[in-house]
Amino acid sequence: MAHLSTILFSVQIEACRLYSKFAARPNSLEAIPAIIEKAVRSSIYGRPGACYVDIPGDMVTSKIRSELLSKIYYFTVTIKTFVCENIHNFTNVLPSFLKGAAYSRAEDNIKKLINMCGLPFLPTPMGKGVVPDNHRNCVSAARSRALQNADVILLLGARLNWILHFGHPPRFRADVKIIQVDLCAEELGNNVKPVAALLGDVNAVVEQLLECFRINPWTYPSKSEWWFHLKEKMKDNEEASKALAAQKSLPMNYYTVFHNIQAVLPKDCIIVSEGANTMDIGRTVLQNYLPRHRLDAGTFGTMGVGLGFALAAALIAKDESPHQRVICIEGDSAFGFSSMEVETICRYGLPIVVIVVNNNGIYSGVDEDTWKELTKVGETEIVAPPISLTPNAHYEQVMIAFGGKGYFVQTPEELQKALAACLADQKLPSLINVMIDPSSDRKKQDFTWLTRSNM
Amino acid sequence: MAHLSTILFSVQIEACRLYSKFAARPNSLEAIPAIIEKAVRSSIYGRPGACYVDIPGDMVTSKIRSELLSKIYYFTVTIKTFVCENIHNFTNVLPSFLKGAAYSRAEDNIKKLINMCGLPFLPTPMGKGVVPDNHRNCVSAARSRALQNADVILLLGARLNWILHFGHPPRFRADVKIIQVDLCAEELGNNVKPVAALLGDVNAVVEQLLECFRINPWTYPSKSEWWFHLKEKMKDNEEASKALAAQKSLPMNYYTVFHNIQAVLPKDCIIVSEGANTMDIGRTVLQNYLPRHRLDAGTFGTMGVGLGFALAAALIAKDESPHQRVICIEGDSAFGFSSMEVETICRYGLPIVVIVVNNNGIYSGVDEDTWKELTKVGETEIVAPPISLTPNAHYEQVMIAFGGKGYFVQTPEELQKALAACLADQKLPSLINVMIDPSSDRKKQDFTWLTRSNM
Amino acid sequence: MAHLSTILFSVQIEACRLYSKFAARPNSLEAIPAIIEKAVRSSIYGRPGACYVDIPGDMVTSKIRSELLSKIYYFTVTIKTFVCENIHNFTNVLPSFLKGAAYSRAEDNIKKLINMCGLPFLPTPMGKGVVPDNHRNCVSAARSRALQNADVILLLGARLNWILHFGHPPRFRADVKIIQVDLCAEELGNNVKPVAALLGDVNAVVEQLLECFRINPWTYPSKSEWWFHLKEKMKDNEEASKALAAQKSLPMNYYTVFHNIQAVLPKDCIIVSEGANTMDIGRTVLQNYLPRHRLDAGTFGTMGVGLGFALAAALIAKDESPHQRVICIEGDSAFGFSSMEVETICRYGLPIVVIVVNNNGIYSGVDEDTWKELTKVGETEIVAPPISLTPNAHYEQVMIAFGGKGYFVQTPEELQKALAACLADQKLPSLINVMIDPSSDRKKQDFTWLTRSNM
Amino acid sequence: MAHLSTILFSVQIEACRLYSKFAARPNSLEAIPAIIEKAVRSSIYGRPGACYVDIPGDMVTSKIRSELLSKIYYFTVTIKTFVCENIHNFTNVLPSFLKGAAYSRAEDNIKKLINMCGLPFLPTPMGKGVVPDNHRNCVSAARSRALQNADVILLLGARLNWILHFGHPPRFRADVKIIQVDLCAEELGNNVKPVAALLGDVNAVVEQLLECFRINPWTYPSKSEWWFHLKEKMKDNEEASKALAAQKSLPMNYYTVFHNIQAVLPKDCIIVSEGANTMDIGRTVLQNYLPRHRLDAGTFGTMGVGLGFALAAALIAKDESPHQRVICIEGDSAFGFSSMEVETICRYGLPIVVIVVNNNGIYSGVDEDTWKELTKVGETEIVAPPISLTPNAHYEQVMIAFGGKGYFVQTPEELQKALAACLADQKLPSLINVMIDPSSDRKKQDFTWLTRSNM
Repeated sequence: MAHLSTILFSVQIEACRLYSKFAARPNSLEAIPAIIEKAVRSSIYGRPGACYVDIPGDMVTSKIRSELLSKIYYFTVTIKTFVCENIHNFTNVLPSFLKGAAYSRAEDNIKKLINMCGLPFLPTPMGKGVVPDNHRNCVSAARSRALQNADVILLLGARLNWILHFGHPPRFRADVKIIQVDLCAEELGNNVKPVAALLGDVNAVVEQLLECFRINPWTYPSKSEWWFHLKEKMKDNEEASKALAAQKSLPMNYYTVFHNIQAVLPKDCIIVSEGANTMDIGRTVLQNYLPRHRLDAGTFGTMGVGLGFALAAALIAKDESPHQRVICIEGDSAFGFSSMEVETICRYGLPIVVIVVNNNGIYSGVDEDTWKELTKVGETEIVAPPISLTPNAHYEQVMIAFGGKGYFVQTPEELQKALAACLADQKLPSLINVMIDPSSDRKKQDFTWLTRSNM
Repeated sequence: MAHLSTILFSVQIEACRLYSKFAARPNSLEAIPAIIEKAVRSSIYGRPGACYVDIPGDMVTSKIRSELLSKIYYFTVTIKTFVCENIHNFTNVLPSFLKGAAYSRAEDNIKKLINMCGLPFLPTPMGKGVVPDNHRNCVSAARSRALQNADVILLLGARLNWILHFGHPPRFRADVKIIQVDLCAEELGNNVKPVAALLGDVNAVVEQLLECFRINPWTYPSKSEWWFHLKEKMKDNEEASKALAAQKSLPMNYYTVFHNIQAVLPKDCIIVSEGANTMDIGRTVLQNYLPRHRLDAGTFGTMGVGLGFALAAALIAKDESPHQRVICIEGDSAFGFSSMEVETICRYGLPIVVIVVNNNGIYSGVDEDTWKELTKVGETEIVAPPISLTPNAHYEQVMIAFGGKGYFVQTPEELQKALAACLADQKLPSLINVMIDPSSDRKKQDFTWLTRSNM
Repeated sequence: MAHLSTILFSVQIEACRLYSKFAARPNSLEAIPAIIEKAVRSSIYGRPGACYVDIPGDMVTSKIRSELLSKIYYFTVTIKTFVCENIHNFTNVLPSFLKGAAYSRAEDNIKKLINMCGLPFLPTPMGKGVVPDNHRNCVSAARSRALQNADVILLLGARLNWILHFGHPPRFRADVKIIQVDLCAEELGNNVKPVAALLGDVNAVVEQLLECFRINPWTYPSKSEWWFHLKEKMKDNEEASKALAAQKSLPMNYYTVFHNIQAVLPKDCIIVSEGANTMDIGRTVLQNYLPRHRLDAGTFGTMGVGLGFALAAALIAKDESPHQRVICIEGDSAFGFSSMEVETICRYGLPIVVIVVNNNGIYSGVDEDTWKELTKVGETEIVAPPISLTPNAHYEQVMIAFGGKGYFVQTPEELQKALAACLADQKLPSLINVMIDPSSDRKKQDFTWLTRSNM
Repeated sequence: MAHLSTILFSVQIEACRLYSKFAARPNSLEAIPAIIEKAVRSSIYGRPGACYVDIPGDMVTSKIRSELLSKIYYFTVTIKTFVCENIHNFTNVLPSFLKGAAYSRAEDNIKKLINMCGLPFLPTPMGKGVVPDNHRNCVSAARSRALQNADVILLLGARLNWILHFGHPPRFRADVKIIQVDLCAEELGNNVKPVAALLGDVNAVVEQLLECFRINPWTYPSKSEWWFHLKEKMKDNEEASKALAAQKSLPMNYYTVFHNIQAVLPKDCIIVSEGANTMDIGRTVLQNYLPRHRLDAGTFGTMGVGLGFALAAALIAKDESPHQRVICIEGDSAFGFSSMEVETICRYGLPIVVIVVNNNGIYSGVDEDTWKELTKVGETEIVAPPISLTPNAHYEQVMIAFGGKGYFVQTPEELQKALAACLADQKLPSLINVMIDPSSDRKKQDFTWLTRSNM
């Protein structure tokens, strides 16, 4: 409508992009319906605002196949009773919760809900601990199967972004029903049209659900096929993980390292983590028993935030619960981004335990012998892979340099002993540099990660 | 090298993008060599500065076929004598010049060069008039053939961007030799590696070339095959254009309109133009005899600038050459962007002649009968194409509204008469609304436009 | 804490500024406490996120007077009963509501609340019509006094930005208690610390308040001193406005124009408005009886949006309530921004009535005689003020040009007659160009507008 | 002119700001003339482009005192002979050169010019070494006096930004004549109107000047009052600097440290430097004898770039001149920004010598005893200044951690010995951590630094 610029682009596009709630330019005709849907939805939900869609001149008069149009969805914010009245109709029920549940301090009510209904549940990274990871209904160990087979998912404060694979097949059933609870209206319906969307503080909404279930009690049958399949997969995965953890060969693998850390960690500690495999595998092995006790690199996976998170957590703990410890588990590459914050940790005398899980590289490195071979004196070119770091780099010396304690460990026994010593010292910060096999990796995954720009 | 973020992206990328001379993120392995080439070149030429290339983690350790690497080129700024010493070696020589030649006021020297050497030349849009369009050596009428067959092109202040098809085949020979003269060091070597690059004010460089040719005179043979082929094509194109212009059917086509305008325009007038076909076809028919007498929508094709350009030109003419006239030729859609500037034109009493070439739409429209059919009363949906505007809209009334003169013309005779009347009036602004066939288009082109984001 | 860049600035600041929920750099030591308060609050409320405060190196070790620190405030989201339990303690109670109340479709509940409690109320620009402007409790006519003397204000979906003078003295009592209801958590506590903050959909919250008042009914005494003072001021202001409206001298002033428009407008029409005085004075005179029936230039006062708003409203009305009319009241300068949209209005056959309130300029213009004097022939310089537009410009011709109807009116009788004619025509768009005194202005205001960048 | 937005601001401003060559919004009427001057100049010089000045509505009709208008200046690019013909008219002549002279590899020609004319010269930070710092005509030791009293300055590739105090009094004479030579047209006339502006490659321009002086030889009298005053000040400053350097008290001060480093450094080494006092004082003491052998934090003073610069320089040296050494002199705070690059240095086996000049803080720190006092156990608040870092932090351990050599030095003897040892080792990188007095500062300066946003 009206007068549009149809030759190339003009500067106004940039202004529109900067100031709109949502802005996009379709690359293809097929992309238009989904973009229009998101623009319309974003303009209406939450505080209303302008959205901007820049349709290239050569698409303006094109036609689109009508099947594509059917993919446009709308929804209305529904009433709370939907959940209670309809949940019986589903067989594979899965509540899942993330940061939002933790931020709203919904742990007591969510625990009541889980216990009252006997449902399996799946925490997402920063939602770990809202209900303890060792709760009998936690199905983290069968994460992929749970997501893939659920027919209804109650999303409590979680975004359907790349961390949850956008809610799309093959990681989810094509007909999965999403019941979405979120503080942020703009998030409702993002990527998947929910069957019910509840806008509000997660804790307040869960409290209303509880009231509703108190009136019409409902318990999910513990002998269901869904529970059977989940438990079967959990058993398989836990055994595979334990088998990896039990490997006696040296250097250690990731699973061995995390199982040995887990064996020693106090239940109330705050776990900060960043890295690639270090963060992903650590999350599956290390248990959280309390909400808001895990700090991850978060939605954008930005590296370099871990030591700053640990500093902030330790400063608060110092005042409010001096015996609580902060454990900061870093990949060696991640540690490199802000490593000089160990000077700050020492300066403030905060007894943080930094654990560097050291595989001599980014994603993977090479061992010392291979490195020497690759970088032999006399060679004109260094041909070590660009993602390799110095083999056996002594990161623990960086902590020692500023007055903390440092440990270089290569075996499970050394690791447990060093960690126990760190935890015993209430005053000094320490760093444990844990050497692992440079080629250690996650156990075989059913799916690869999916990334797209539209999060 | 060093520590790179390898999981997704971080905010720093945005900062780097904003502050770098050049920033890019390759979409494919194949794109990396050209991006590295441009980054390295941009960091060095002109005022040196940082460039940023964000290589995705999954490409860091990939290998690339070595043939691709051979596409990376470097060059050094060469000495002026290159031109004089080497130009004899080429057969299809083509000097071409754009805005830069006009801005540097190089017209006298370029004319001397053309006359001294007897070379064909091709002006680009805002370079028209540096040498008069009616100079016997001007090959505008064979633009595509000239570009496509030249074996050496002397680029005087022109960018190898989309307007010049990036210098790439099939619009250019794959082995074309570019001799590039530019004020802006960063432009040297952009998209095509020049055989010689001369950094400096275009006028100063051409003066040095003249000195050089005075010492070693050289004249391009007027009987060459190159001249023969160019003249043949020019004759064909001019005849095709004249045939279109001569069509007697009404409504008029673009060529008829522009030939009738050209017949009346004073030689020293300033021509402002914007629109799609209006600007592109007008440029081929309307002649410029003086430098800096044509104002186009420019590199980014931004619509809505024409009336502002005309205002500025007329204010200066008022003081410096009161008898000189400003003619502003607008497509009907382009006119809509800033049409209320006619109020400003009237307020300042500037005798600008605005000509709206009205095809009832953007790119193309429909005639009044078709429109009525498409939008019949009782229909629930308006099904006229979104790029149609009101048929026979009386834009001339907008000028009349604010005190200027307005003309609605439908025939060549009415057009010539109205334009003559406008030019005769030294005081009042006027607007001629010229109705053309809504389906009128350019004559058949050998190539479609090429656009890419990397300009 | 940690390592800060202390010499000049670096590119990272720009990235932080772009990606933070809130970012600021204090200009003075005194500004730091308020900035820290806003950063902390913004990081916590709503979806938590990073905020960025860039403290210049020379302020890092400075000390600040402790009194300033007391200005930092925090608050917690409180329970709904606060309102019911505490409202009796205040004497000068004022509910006020803006866009948010209209967007949440809270009109029925807000009307019930007003009627049940007998409270005075004040709508803000886009909140007009949620409760009809002619409701006996509406105190718009005493806006400044109401805001200045209220001891408690119930803010329903309104931002304390420049439109509400940031909630600061002298426009508000220094000890005013704000009860804030908003969908947007980040807005809570902005500029003024509320005594109670209720996060949620305005309609849902008001419904809860109603339940609460049903249990503990409370009526504000209609004979209170607060009502007395408000009514006194309303009477004064309405008389002053009527006196201005009744002036018989020509050209008309703003008040005369708007009273004559108001006399003719249908109660259910949609009023779109933009301009400076045109929008501000029109808002005080033109009545809204229905919610979401007024479209203003909005929070940022962006000019050029009016005709687009009118187009959108008329397209919806065409389908949903064909007899409902859209009236678009524009200052002459505001009309100039997007005036060619009248072509679009005509093309779609939408019976919009555009009224241009024409004072020959931006803020103010000059009359035709003065203009001629200022721009006499022979003068080398045009010395008319840059904010003057063409005197008596015939904007109505622009509508006529594209097939609509146009009226040029100079007296109250002509205005009423033209508007009646426009409204009688259900098919054609029309434009009434209303000439007013170029020096007409608002009636004397008690306060000047306050603007700051921190909205 | 034309229709301007006069109420608040709109999004277009942001687009204009982003895409203009220059954009500004005056804060005061007085600022308008200088902004208009810069906008007009920027739009014309170099590649022409749009500039944007956003004049607030309340200033549009204001008047300005005519004296201010006289401050607007224009200039034309002048011919090279200006310099030769006019230079005799000045008494206090000062050539000064920066990065641009180094980048254009103009060292040979500039040396010839200095020697031929016998002129005093002043290198700016990255221009050091174009002519050796120990050349008898170098007046670095009297920098402030030279700038303050020069009546004509030949600026070769230097920007008149904050590093050169914008060319304004009191650091310069109000009537100073600037002859500006620059590659970048937009830089010509920035902040000060030059009497002559020569656009081009610095080396090419200097070569033309040499030709000109060869024809009309001119030598500046070595017995002039200007030379007398400069030499007098140089002697004073050098003596003050030597007196500071000779202080025997421990911890050392900056001057002692740099004089002892200078005593040992090879003449052909590359000096990289970043920090506050470390960079500023080091620049005055450490001598450069060759062009492009000094890498500073540069125009924006961005910290964290030093180790990356050193890495790049050492990689090139490794291939091209393996015996040449790279010395990277860092303030302790600056070192913290990217310290983990020492791992990269070790990984690539580059024999870089990093020297950390450690004053326990940013700008200044506290000694160990004071630190203990300030942070006593049992105190609830850490009251050490936020700009203090850990006293006596052992940064050398960070280098040792990754396989390099580390030295902790506290006396001149230790420093010289450690540096000699580092330089003797052709293979391993090393880091010397030099403890200095936490309160050490520059010697008393005649002026404080001037910063403004308009660089």
